[in-house]
Amino acid sequence: MKRRDLIKAAGLAAAAGAAAATTPAHAAKTIRWKMVTTWPKNFPGLGTGANNLAKLINEMSDGRIKVKVYGAKELVGALEIFDAVSQGTAEMGHGASYYWKGKSRAAQFFAAVPFGLTAQEMNGWLYHGGGMELWEEAYAPFGLVPGAAGNTGVQMGGWFNKEINSVADLEGLKMRIPGLGGEVLKRAGGTPVLLPGGEIFPSLQSGAIDATEWVGPYNDMAFGLHKAAKYYYYPGWHEPGTTLECFVNKKALEALPKDLQVIVRNAIRVANQDMLADFTAKNNKALEQLVNQHGVELRKYPDEVLQKLRVLSDAVVREEAEKDPMTKKVYDSFVAFRDQAIQWHGVSEQAYLNARTLK
Amino acid sequence: MKRRDLIKAAGLAAAAGAAAATTPAHAAKTIRWKMVTTWPKNFPGLGTGANNLAKLINEMSDGRIKVKVYGAKELVGALEIFDAVSQGTAEMGHGASYYWKGKSRAAQFFAAVPFGLTAQEMNGWLYHGGGMELWEEAYAPFGLVPGAAGNTGVQMGGWFNKEINSVADLEGLKMRIPGLGGEVLKRAGGTPVLLPGGEIFPSLQSGAIDATEWVGPYNDMAFGLHKAAKYYYYPGWHEPGTTLECFVNKKALEALPKDLQVIVRNAIRVANQDMLADFTAKNNKALEQLVNQHGVELRKYPDEVLQKLRVLSDAVVREEAEKDPMTKKVYDSFVAFRDQAIQWHGVSEQAYLNARTLK
Repeated sequence: MKRRDLIKAAGLAAAAGAAAATTPAHAAKTIRWKMVTTWPKNFPGLGTGANNLAKLINEMSDGRIKVKVYGAKELVGALEIFDAVSQGTAEMGHGASYYWKGKSRAAQFFAAVPFGLTAQEMNGWLYHGGGMELWEEAYAPFGLVPGAAGNTGVQMGGWFNKEINSVADLEGLKMRIPGLGGEVLKRAGGTPVLLPGGEIFPSLQSGAIDATEWVGPYNDMAFGLHKAAKYYYYPGWHEPGTTLECFVNKKALEALPKDLQVIVRNAIRVANQDMLADFTAKNNKALEQLVNQHGVELRKYPDEVLQKLRVLSDAVVREEAEKDPMTKKVYDSFVAFRDQAIQWHGVSEQAYLNARTLK
Repeated sequence: MKRRDLIKAAGLAAAAGAAAATTPAHAAKTIRWKMVTTWPKNFPGLGTGANNLAKLINEMSDGRIKVKVYGAKELVGALEIFDAVSQGTAEMGHGASYYWKGKSRAAQFFAAVPFGLTAQEMNGWLYHGGGMELWEEAYAPFGLVPGAAGNTGVQMGGWFNKEINSVADLEGLKMRIPGLGGEVLKRAGGTPVLLPGGEIFPSLQSGAIDATEWVGPYNDMAFGLHKAAKYYYYPGWHEPGTTLECFVNKKALEALPKDLQVIVRNAIRVANQDMLADFTAKNNKALEQLVNQHGVELRKYPDEVLQKLRVLSDAVVREEAEKDPMTKKVYDSFVAFRDQAIQWHGVSEQAYLNARTLK
């Protein structure tokens, strides 16, 4: 089938399902949706978050929509989900928007930006600061409706087999770190390396790389990274509130009756909050285990290093924004919100967290 | 009508509505619910949050449930909503759990605790750390099902007409500050004063009180507090992530078909996240206006004062917990989660916020 036919067929099928759903609920034909994901099936936090979202849509719609979740490679590859949902091969996709920078450079701002927004700030920007409207604008050319569908919170800086005591220690550092963060490391003299998840552990153990970032205590411990590296650095300056996404094929969404559209959109919002709560609780516990049972050495990046990375990050992100008008538009909104958030959280979240731990 | 009859009548009405709703959706009789609130109708953030929640339930249920929101005193008084929903006079209530400490001392832990959890930590504890189950247990004797329905984030310390440069400056301070925070101030030598919202401004202006806490820049500016006080102190050690609540009459909830139960529970979760995002964005802007346009003097509580307040808070909260077994059970869970969160957020949220503002 040609691409055009595929889209048409998917649209018709969705419309048929929708028409049926306006007739009595229990007599209605079930609308069957596919959710393709960037994560291995049931991957802790990210994959389980996608599963919970599907379950919630099923329950809130009283089974009128049944969403089936596909792990990476089950239906399409991890990085093919954007195209698959855009073309209507699946109705929903669960991933992270920085994977699609080749299609929309602006998309990176809706996932994670070095020295950018925290989870709470991202939600403020997206839901009440104009961010969501920009995200919708960025995805509209692809026939996709985006939604924030989870957040990891501030990630960890990463696992290292050598100490970082000064900016000079970043020179020549071979570190697995993708995206804008990788570009920042490069400008600091390091060598960013791209490796899929499965190759990280052996590469770190063999010394092929000196360091790697991943997510945070909960995911990192499950990966066994503490067995391959000595130091666990913080904070994750490069991913301070990574937002996961769930995008929906626009035609499929609009073909649903109004109440089901509202259910799908709001199930995504529930998933967004729930994943952050899940990571918060699980990271709490995993960090305790890593430190107390596995003897992991926690290290803070020296201030000098963080200051340098901040300056480099601001330059990298600004240059990225200059490359096309849509990215510039998103950047301007994002940075204006961040500047306000730095002021407000300076007297609220940040000031409180510091007050709570005064020695 | 006697109380018992009222409950019975409400239960029957709800059951009737529920039975109707399992018949075809568009033929079903609409279930009409009342939501009574502690807030003046349309009060910014809190009242509007309740309105949004009602609207969302209406939309997700395709009008099968219609929730009508009542401001304080429209149907019952602000502090009568707990009883009203417990007795079935209304099906839902929107308030804050520390108002009900006379009925359940443990309830205070689900709203705000001095030097307790932030918004993100509260959600972690409630949704994935056992908190929600304890809240349900605490409200079960009243026939109520609770849910977190909004969060203010870290509040401000308050408005002062005298400077606080040392612990000695708290002695004799007449400050409007309710609840556990008020008890802490008392132990520091101050005089906590209880005043309803409407009396705060004139009392501050006349000098009847020296200081007041309220919420944060967005609400405080709307109240005009910057016109009656000179200094705006931070952080709000006494309310570091105040959680609003929506409780539902258990019989009314359970009489709904399963999908509508899931819709009601999850609409509350959406409201929880949305209010925090709203406060984050609006506080950002209001703080900018207060400082740049109204010349408000922002002051941080001195470290010495915060350390003293922390020690006193821990004692006050611990003593509160010793007063009954249920409160002790909730306290133990809450404090264990907080101790973990202090460790984890020390290397994530807190460390990142500090790294972002390194000078």
